[in-house]
Amino acid sequence: MAATQRRIDVTIESVRRLLRVGATPNLVNLLQKLHPADLAQVFAELPERERHAAFNTLVERNGRLAMEAVSELGPEKGAELLALRSAEEIARLLQEIESDDAAALIESLSDDLRVAVLALIHPKPGGGVSELLEYEERTAGRLMNPNVFALPEDVTAGEAITALQSARDVEMVFYLYVVDERRHLVGVVSLRRLLLVPPDTPLKRIMTTEVYSASVDLDQEEVARRVASYNLLAIPVVDQENKLVGVITVDDVIDVIKDEATEEIYRLAGVSIDDGVDTPPAESLRRRLPWLVLNLVTAFVSATVVARFTDVIEQVVILAALMPVVAGLGGNAATQTLAVVVRGISMGELTGTNARQALLKESFVGLGNGLVIGLVGATAVWAFTGFQWALGFILMAAMIINMSVAAIAGTLIPIGLRAMKVDPALASSVFITALTDVIGFLSFLGLATVFVRYL
Amino acid sequence: MAATQRRIDVTIESVRRLLRVGATPNLVNLLQKLHPADLAQVFAELPERERHAAFNTLVERNGRLAMEAVSELGPEKGAELLALRSAEEIARLLQEIESDDAAALIESLSDDLRVAVLALIHPKPGGGVSELLEYEERTAGRLMNPNVFALPEDVTAGEAITALQSARDVEMVFYLYVVDERRHLVGVVSLRRLLLVPPDTPLKRIMTTEVYSASVDLDQEEVARRVASYNLLAIPVVDQENKLVGVITVDDVIDVIKDEATEEIYRLAGVSIDDGVDTPPAESLRRRLPWLVLNLVTAFVSATVVARFTDVIEQVVILAALMPVVAGLGGNAATQTLAVVVRGISMGELTGTNARQALLKESFVGLGNGLVIGLVGATAVWAFTGFQWALGFILMAAMIINMSVAAIAGTLIPIGLRAMKVDPALASSVFITALTDVIGFLSFLGLATVFVRYL
Repeated sequence: MAATQRRIDVTIESVRRLLRVGATPNLVNLLQKLHPADLAQVFAELPERERHAAFNTLVERNGRLAMEAVSELGPEKGAELLALRSAEEIARLLQEIESDDAAALIESLSDDLRVAVLALIHPKPGGGVSELLEYEERTAGRLMNPNVFALPEDVTAGEAITALQSARDVEMVFYLYVVDERRHLVGVVSLRRLLLVPPDTPLKRIMTTEVYSASVDLDQEEVARRVASYNLLAIPVVDQENKLVGVITVDDVIDVIKDEATEEIYRLAGVSIDDGVDTPPAESLRRRLPWLVLNLVTAFVSATVVARFTDVIEQVVILAALMPVVAGLGGNAATQTLAVVVRGISMGELTGTNARQALLKESFVGLGNGLVIGLVGATAVWAFTGFQWALGFILMAAMIINMSVAAIAGTLIPIGLRAMKVDPALASSVFITALTDVIGFLSFLGLATVFVRYL
Repeated sequence: MAATQRRIDVTIESVRRLLRVGATPNLVNLLQKLHPADLAQVFAELPERERHAAFNTLVERNGRLAMEAVSELGPEKGAELLALRSAEEIARLLQEIESDDAAALIESLSDDLRVAVLALIHPKPGGGVSELLEYEERTAGRLMNPNVFALPEDVTAGEAITALQSARDVEMVFYLYVVDERRHLVGVVSLRRLLLVPPDTPLKRIMTTEVYSASVDLDQEEVARRVASYNLLAIPVVDQENKLVGVITVDDVIDVIKDEATEEIYRLAGVSIDDGVDTPPAESLRRRLPWLVLNLVTAFVSATVVARFTDVIEQVVILAALMPVVAGLGGNAATQTLAVVVRGISMGELTGTNARQALLKESFVGLGNGLVIGLVGATAVWAFTGFQWALGFILMAAMIINMSVAAIAGTLIPIGLRAMKVDPALASSVFITALTDVIGFLSFLGLATVFVRYL
């Protein structure tokens, strides 16, 4: 990171300086030396006004590079850079980039602009941007590039190499897909294999017929899992009739894996997937409030639990200080279990067959945590209160109960949600900590009420 | 997922049946039809005894496939399958797989076995397993495969193709690295480019000289970032003198990205990276307890804060029911901010230049959250208590204070940790919720003490 980030910081300083003095040719020169990914980073870190100025300067001179950087920036930020241009200009510029990136950008434009741009785009032969947008979001169809390199099965290795040499505008090629006369996917040949055989060998003879593919409606998470499991560099996408319609390359799969990880972290924390460091403040506020309101409701539910026990609290006011300890520890133990279980599900390590084993294991851990933490907590209570034995034992018992419940709920709720085909990460801390609050208060204050004469 | 998982479930049933009836040839036949990744999944889901039985059956007949599945299983589970074999057998079996996978497996063996195996492995020419283990964990050196395909710069394209045809035992090749006479990395040629030029063209004329590479000591997270940013299929690894020593392929980078995501989720939840769904219960317990003990300490700190206010609680006992609402909401708001900021840092979206902007934004969101949630909370208090005005206002004020602190701490603590080169995710919920508990209790009970005559 260090070296690259330093180079980008230096570049940003130069860009700002060149913009100030209006040295357009030097600015274009500087920007043109960058890799699109670095250029995207520079755009991302420039203040808004200068970001637009730098982009506008570059796009007039080198539309392709500017648009490649926009692709790397991602659809939301990319669409923002394009937002002030006319639909005609945008439609023209989109031709410079891959159809899948173009489709994602169009999807992020404002409603008016999106409609206008879509009306202007004339579908490319062999699948264009408009077709991609007909597939559901987060499916293989939306993610794929329709410009896939494929040849009929009776073409020879030599002919294939010639065809490859004249192929343009296709995604990075490392596999050659083989199709029959009706474009059904029938095999795959690696580029390396092509080099190893005599030029007159037909593809049919050297192709692998067991091809890992994805159907257009396959969820992107499963696409990523296949590419990752089978160590593929690309996966062909087929329609319902097994006709080849596109290809998804590993670089796009990496983006999916990162997005899915972000989503998992966000869900666990009760944050919307569209939120981020540079989401406008008002937008972030609007997106985070519903979760907090939900949490407020659950917090008031636990408050009513406490309110039932005001008599015992008035008698033994130290209970008010200790009850959040029981509730909080339960919440943290639940968060630990939740992280392990949710991650286990999404990494494919927790499946139907070992769910029962996982529940037993987590229950054991929860009970063990409760015993140890309860004992340590009780000891602390005894030390601080001059050996109020009953108070310590009640704290310990409540902790054992709460941590066992935390472990069981932290395992069962995500597994249950998965079985109901709901994202397990939705069992976010909000719900689980609500439960551990209620159980914590109820067990601790309930036991205190029962044994109040010993307190 | 569905189709694949179903197929694996069916296979597992067959494996168990064939093991029961002792139909070894059929079992080997069945297992040999699987892709190593699917075989690994089957092993992972089989109960322990049957996992060992199936592995032992296969390893005698098809050591390579069995070991490829072990590589796919990952080092910990893989080492477990090998644990009962002699060092000699393990050393022999390790020759069937890539050096980087072998190194990771050895590292996960028990201490005795590791030493014995290492003593038996005779270093392969051109970099072997023992050399890999000399690099730090989580660096490019540890991750790379030393068998990298490279040619001198005056070799022609035609000669390169011939060399490629006879190359064996190298990682999947898609780039041809070009080195000078002292093995310094000087360029790269894509396989496709090789096909496009006349056979007598020297590599020097067609190679790209600006090569993205990683030095042996580069952190694996930065390796992954480079491969992902520049859409590479592999990145060459060089030593301090820029000599080519290995290559890291994109499939290994995908594993790193997944591991880093798991680590981030775990850190935020206070779980050790070595914990998981199938970690033995006693081990999970041992690994989770330190975090909970730490949390117990912080919880007792907030308990002492509450204990300072027992007078006011005795006078107005409803405070005991409402104080966890203030603390809890602050904790949830802090978790939201933390998720966005920590993820922003690790995705490279939050850098030095926009840290101040992020702080301003989060402070605004925190203040906004506090105002809205405070007002809703106060309204609920008024509704439930028959319009105890002061109590509602005190709750609102405490929420505004606590949520603003939550936002500022949730932003500054991870940014500060990053500046100190500590993993920002260490600012886990444990610490942040400890802070929001203390501030929540302090502000709410403090204000209640000041304005007690109105309550």
